[in-house]
Amino acid sequence: MIGERLEKLRNAMKMEKVDCCLIPTSDYHDSEYVSDFFAVRRYFSGFTGSAGTLVVAESEAALFTDGRYFIQAAKELEGTEIQLMKMGEPEVPTLKEYLEKVLQDGQTLGFDGRVIPAKEAEDYEKILQKKQGRIVWDMDPAEGIWEDRPHLPGNPVYILDECYSGESVEKKIERVRSQMKEKGADVHILTTLDDIAWLFNLRGSDVDYCPVFLAYAVIRMDEVLLFADKSEVDLYLKENKVTLRPYRDIYDYVSGLHGEKLLVNRGRMNYRLYKSLAEDMVVIDEANPTAMMKAVKNPTEIENLRKAHLKDAVAVTRFMFWLKDNVGKIPMTEISAEEYLEQLRREQTNFIEPSFRTICAYGANGAIIHYSAQEESCAQIMPKGLLMVDSGGHYSEGSTDITRTFVLGPVTAEMKYHFTLVLRSMLRLANTRFLYGCRGANLDIRAREVFWEQGLDFKHGTGHGVGYLLNVHEGPNSFHWKIVDNKPNSAVLEEGMVTTDEPGIYIEGSHGIRLENELLCRKGEKNEFGQFMCFENLTWVPIDLDGVAIDQLTAEERNWLNDYHRQVCEKLTPYFEGKELAWLEEATREI
Amino acid sequence: MIGERLEKLRNAMKMEKVDCCLIPTSDYHDSEYVSDFFAVRRYFSGFTGSAGTLVVAESEAALFTDGRYFIQAAKELEGTEIQLMKMGEPEVPTLKEYLEKVLQDGQTLGFDGRVIPAKEAEDYEKILQKKQGRIVWDMDPAEGIWEDRPHLPGNPVYILDECYSGESVEKKIERVRSQMKEKGADVHILTTLDDIAWLFNLRGSDVDYCPVFLAYAVIRMDEVLLFADKSEVDLYLKENKVTLRPYRDIYDYVSGLHGEKLLVNRGRMNYRLYKSLAEDMVVIDEANPTAMMKAVKNPTEIENLRKAHLKDAVAVTRFMFWLKDNVGKIPMTEISAEEYLEQLRREQTNFIEPSFRTICAYGANGAIIHYSAQEESCAQIMPKGLLMVDSGGHYSEGSTDITRTFVLGPVTAEMKYHFTLVLRSMLRLANTRFLYGCRGANLDIRAREVFWEQGLDFKHGTGHGVGYLLNVHEGPNSFHWKIVDNKPNSAVLEEGMVTTDEPGIYIEGSHGIRLENELLCRKGEKNEFGQFMCFENLTWVPIDLDGVAIDQLTAEERNWLNDYHRQVCEKLTPYFEGKELAWLEEATREI
Repeated sequence: MIGERLEKLRNAMKMEKVDCCLIPTSDYHDSEYVSDFFAVRRYFSGFTGSAGTLVVAESEAALFTDGRYFIQAAKELEGTEIQLMKMGEPEVPTLKEYLEKVLQDGQTLGFDGRVIPAKEAEDYEKILQKKQGRIVWDMDPAEGIWEDRPHLPGNPVYILDECYSGESVEKKIERVRSQMKEKGADVHILTTLDDIAWLFNLRGSDVDYCPVFLAYAVIRMDEVLLFADKSEVDLYLKENKVTLRPYRDIYDYVSGLHGEKLLVNRGRMNYRLYKSLAEDMVVIDEANPTAMMKAVKNPTEIENLRKAHLKDAVAVTRFMFWLKDNVGKIPMTEISAEEYLEQLRREQTNFIEPSFRTICAYGANGAIIHYSAQEESCAQIMPKGLLMVDSGGHYSEGSTDITRTFVLGPVTAEMKYHFTLVLRSMLRLANTRFLYGCRGANLDIRAREVFWEQGLDFKHGTGHGVGYLLNVHEGPNSFHWKIVDNKPNSAVLEEGMVTTDEPGIYIEGSHGIRLENELLCRKGEKNEFGQFMCFENLTWVPIDLDGVAIDQLTAEERNWLNDYHRQVCEKLTPYFEGKELAWLEEATREI
Repeated sequence: MIGERLEKLRNAMKMEKVDCCLIPTSDYHDSEYVSDFFAVRRYFSGFTGSAGTLVVAESEAALFTDGRYFIQAAKELEGTEIQLMKMGEPEVPTLKEYLEKVLQDGQTLGFDGRVIPAKEAEDYEKILQKKQGRIVWDMDPAEGIWEDRPHLPGNPVYILDECYSGESVEKKIERVRSQMKEKGADVHILTTLDDIAWLFNLRGSDVDYCPVFLAYAVIRMDEVLLFADKSEVDLYLKENKVTLRPYRDIYDYVSGLHGEKLLVNRGRMNYRLYKSLAEDMVVIDEANPTAMMKAVKNPTEIENLRKAHLKDAVAVTRFMFWLKDNVGKIPMTEISAEEYLEQLRREQTNFIEPSFRTICAYGANGAIIHYSAQEESCAQIMPKGLLMVDSGGHYSEGSTDITRTFVLGPVTAEMKYHFTLVLRSMLRLANTRFLYGCRGANLDIRAREVFWEQGLDFKHGTGHGVGYLLNVHEGPNSFHWKIVDNKPNSAVLEEGMVTTDEPGIYIEGSHGIRLENELLCRKGEKNEFGQFMCFENLTWVPIDLDGVAIDQLTAEERNWLNDYHRQVCEKLTPYFEGKELAWLEEATREI
């Protein structure tokens, strides 16, 4: 099947005189998750992971993906001609290096300029310049080939009340304008869907698990335009002095701009849109002001988040009880467990939808970092070994993201050792006290040191920012240690930022363990040395003590765990009774 | 006195129509330590620290310096009109912000363009552009005012034998040329004195404590020029196919270049030299290739460094014995102790000179981070409290840098608590295992976490690179947590790099404690997770156990300390006997 699709693509490439075709995983807005219309890389490669870039040349093809997907991609690419490029591994070329190798002098690189950010496209321009070749950036590789391609989504949007958002559209726009003034910008184009949803206090469902909608926004000192096919909020927008225009009109609008100073994040604006700009426009290429604004949660959002996490904890803890109580007694699969967990979340007030596709991975499936169970092939859950469940919910009060690994019966000493290692790692980062000014890159070793001491590691970031009823992965804060190209990829941690803390360990063919809490950054003591910062735990679900090797913990780590469990019990007790409550007390006992 | 000098300067400024004068601490080569000829900032401000910038405007003056010097600068500026600007403290303007404030529209900023790097001058250009003012960059503020100004130094240089340098000049130049080719450069200008000394295997004494000499170097594919007034090595240079030219000719040479691609580190090239470049020169602004080459010590240098550190340990340990044995019995001052330590170092073979001015600080003086004792005012050393000694030596086998804090008699519980905190901090960083790719910014928290947990900190970097018989502060490796302007200030740690590990605590008016070992970066295990790295200790002098509160140490920290002392005893035993040896065994006893 994949062979046939690639053949058709290569024929199309010949017609358009394209020697090499680049197919990223993206939409017109550089979104991380994309609607099915944009699943072109998946269509041509068969790889279903959420991140990866396919390159198809005349006589070879390669898929680039990161450590989270090495095992999964190897499996899914089996039997195709596509070579797996494990990004970041020694001796594996980068995408750019690969293109330099595969493109001959005078050849042509083709891609859909709407799904590649302007900044990234510059790199390709440079390569083609060197090769004296050219770029074809107005091709859509799927056009004419992908016959049953889904439509561009166009679902209705809804208004997020100020009791949830905590700030009016007017005030948000005022703050954006004040930053535009500082930077000397006449006009600001916002291309990223979560920033747009945040700014207008609107939510949608154009992308699975992401309550965003397809749109562009233009902010001027005297005018705000929203390019989106969402007439249902026309009146609301008018009340907020926002003019609604059709989604597709953005290209014409942009090409009509002249002689102005434009604030735009070139890393997130698509190449085709960027190419529409007139020569006399002055581009101020900086992060969107809204990126930092939405990352720093306001007091209303924080209060709501505490509520959302408590509801979520009730659901997940109930799931934990059900799982441990029923495993081996009733039939269970990864899919049925996932569904049961979703059902428990749906019982909570203001639950909207899961915040991402649940990873419910039993046994060796847990070693596939971003595993998602398939109806036909998913595993039976048995009363032995480990089940890892990484899930979350969108509530009106915010989004959650939590991972727990559950012990379902006998486990090996190695599994317990690994479980405890992951627990220590999570606790150490969560209990870090640091000076204001630190970034995730400064703190990440607090989570990794217990791994590194043993010659172990996990091949993913330790944590990511989380949106408020928005994308579950949100910048600019994160816990990552690698500083690539001399640029730190994690922002200074500000009070009000929410970041996950999710170390893990993955033993191929055997087991995977990950534990994840969300951390709210808070101010601590301020003294002559500066402003100290700390984290407040948002997530309140028991850590399965059946996995903990107590003698592996330091006295400090043991105190942290007992303190955490004491709070879990205290917070959840009002929602449990009878057998469940007795179990909760036992599950959060002091060790 | 300062008032008089500033008045003369302001008169000179009026003559040259300069409204504001900028006086950094630098020479024509952006050196950290400068010869007395360049001590212009010290002359006009009275501040004797090694880092600081003086700004003199018509009606105000300010000195900018960093945390190491806050206490010292406040003392030395007392009674002058000069305002102390504590860099990095909240609400203290940066130098640029201050200039923006103090310079009125249309005014003029003056400085000596030879003592300001081209990249830094750009910032000033931008400010003056905004203010529609101009820069006068050919003034020397000291000219005609500083009457007894020392001469430009011109001391003889000597050849460093290959048994010490480990690599021939020819091979080094070959490596530089290969990097020039990679970057497409026709010509490379080297302006930094330590890079030049390293490249030519020459050492000098034009700058106190830094075995460098005033020079510029030009490397082309077919020619190497050394601009230096050092005829004594003319023959040696000829043998190495290097042409010697007078030091001052570099400006003419540079202005004579045309239409070539020049590799130069604009951050380290002086503004006046940069301004001498013709318009048609293409500048490739990158780090000097030699910066990384000299930071990564070769096997010969590493073997030599181990020897140098052992000799240095013998001297410092002997000093420790003498100090603890004699305090209270014979008269001792900070200066006499410093001299005695230097004498002990001089007894070691191939000792050349101290690698920096010793900090020998008793009691409350220890809280002045870069204290240097003065003959007239230095403290008597008494049999109580703490003495901190930060010192080092240049040997043919390399340079050393070590700090120990000694307990001379009764100390408070707080002092012991602080001493143990500093010890834990040093041990934790030294015993870090990490994945290749980490920088100092990733690891720094290993040293600081024990401070931060207690709401404490130290206001200096945790460590710096050390040159091989070169500058005691050498980049690009260091341990610093702050990532400023989104640029990490510490390089990826490579095998062969040497970095100090020197946490401290400073309690104004009471005491200061610092402990410092040097760490050699080494490769550890390589496995599926990557290349693990670790540190090898180079410094072998007992930690004063009289300062250690044993119950404050974790079991792991205690093991590290005992293991360290076991090695110290083993390595030093051959050099000690009798009473000294008995003391050494006691001083390194297991706790």
